[in-house]
Amino acid sequence: MEQVIRYGSIEAGGTKFICAVGDEDFNIIESITFATGTPVQTLDKVRDFFTQNPVSSLGIGSFGPIDINRTSKLYGQVMETSKESWRNANLLKELQSWFGQPIFLTTDVNSSAYGEYSFGKAKQMESCAYVTIGTGIGAGIIQQNQFVGGTTHLEIGHSYVNRHEFDMTFEGVCPYHGANCFEGVAAGPSILQRYGISGEKLPLNHEFWEIEAYYLAQLAYNIRVNFAPEVIIFGGGVVNEMLLDKVRRQFEKINANYIEVSDLENFIVSSYFTNNGSATIGNFALAKRILDEEKREK
Amino acid sequence: MEQVIRYGSIEAGGTKFICAVGDEDFNIIESITFATGTPVQTLDKVRDFFTQNPVSSLGIGSFGPIDINRTSKLYGQVMETSKESWRNANLLKELQSWFGQPIFLTTDVNSSAYGEYSFGKAKQMESCAYVTIGTGIGAGIIQQNQFVGGTTHLEIGHSYVNRHEFDMTFEGVCPYHGANCFEGVAAGPSILQRYGISGEKLPLNHEFWEIEAYYLAQLAYNIRVNFAPEVIIFGGGVVNEMLLDKVRRQFEKINANYIEVSDLENFIVSSYFTNNGSATIGNFALAKRILDEEKREK
Repeated sequence: MEQVIRYGSIEAGGTKFICAVGDEDFNIIESITFATGTPVQTLDKVRDFFTQNPVSSLGIGSFGPIDINRTSKLYGQVMETSKESWRNANLLKELQSWFGQPIFLTTDVNSSAYGEYSFGKAKQMESCAYVTIGTGIGAGIIQQNQFVGGTTHLEIGHSYVNRHEFDMTFEGVCPYHGANCFEGVAAGPSILQRYGISGEKLPLNHEFWEIEAYYLAQLAYNIRVNFAPEVIIFGGGVVNEMLLDKVRRQFEKINANYIEVSDLENFIVSSYFTNNGSATIGNFALAKRILDEEKREK
Repeated sequence: MEQVIRYGSIEAGGTKFICAVGDEDFNIIESITFATGTPVQTLDKVRDFFTQNPVSSLGIGSFGPIDINRTSKLYGQVMETSKESWRNANLLKELQSWFGQPIFLTTDVNSSAYGEYSFGKAKQMESCAYVTIGTGIGAGIIQQNQFVGGTTHLEIGHSYVNRHEFDMTFEGVCPYHGANCFEGVAAGPSILQRYGISGEKLPLNHEFWEIEAYYLAQLAYNIRVNFAPEVIIFGGGVVNEMLLDKVRRQFEKINANYIEVSDLENFIVSSYFTNNGSATIGNFALAKRILDEEKREK
């Protein structure tokens, strides 16, 4: 009788951890969510969960910055972070101290990108970009099953931005780049800074959404000319179809017919999964991948 | 007795073609340069050269836009271009009609990037970016022996730019994006448009070089946060050490300690090769690669 395969997922977030077990078809069998404490507190709970729910391999999408270079000595180590107790903690090594099966660890946004690539909007494509707009702006880019910039975090949210003509005086919220980078002018905190409310609460007909759409369209355009993915998938709290439609219109203006994009509705899209589900599926898919890789090596 | 291996290089430019034959150590044995005519004229000369100088495989870096997707039906076909006689000509198929050995075709800037990756400033690294500043701005990015965006041209020169504070009124020269993209404000034609002379002739102490350095530093910074290459190599007529030093200083300001770059002098560098030699070496290396790949498959 063949052994039953189970895949494990850890969404390691700065505020909460989600652990899940999936079957071979990536259906979630069991999951648990808890607040992120110190590394010891948190990883004890992770251990308890996967002791009760054994898995064949693990996929992890982690908050960061974290070393994701699989050939690095520091692979899995949390680098400079605002969460002091996690600084220099090695998430991977802690897990490996008791979990003897294969582990694939990457960034949270890479996990989500991989979820879309495996089972979402980029299924059966050779490449995709996944962009999340939240407290920060992050992106995961996949090309032929590899993460672009695979040895480190991509920091596309901090790439420099061309300001909207009606947004030239806003001082921006990026502690490093002020209003010069996308995070400084287009992530959640910039909306809070401008209007005192979160993006989710700002009325859908507010004129700011044209400005936001300009920035997201510019980001999508830059991603297109920089990486040429087959699809750009937007996720995160402020993203909705009305906004994405504005993004598509602004994309057309910015592009000015430079790049041929035959089907814009299917090029700039929202996430396939609701409630950030792409990360769990992505982790299952990464768990499967590392298990398959190690089997082939034997 | 083993057969002698010879590698062929074609630098297919819009104004001139350079064909070369190299030995197994990539030393140039024979080369020829001629003006680009119609496809028939030009490819006849290419055929003559490689008939007299037989090679085991060919690497080609081509002007474009050209389809470089190795799985595409149109692989090797020149797309929309200002050179009317070349439009829809298929460079690869024309060569394959008489040359029975393996051919690797990519863009000119990818060839140069591959030259640096194989034998230049990025030798023994896992990744690099090569940026050329000329009549346009192009970039080739390599990550673990693969071209990023491998199925199409990257168009990084047309990504959006944050304007220099003393350069807000210049209208730019990009026919698509005016002064909103890097090509519009920082490539050769923008200097000609501003001052009536080419960048090579503009005095080294001209105040414009601070503006140019800001744009190139911004481009380097964006490449760093987008692709995280180990080195960024600048080539092209206006690039010199004095300018690159300004670029490094501006990079430090733009980065604002966000990304840790321990050795900036070795992160932003000039090309290892003079006279665009990286393209020939890159083509030889690509010719060797495709020959080795096809041997392994047999």
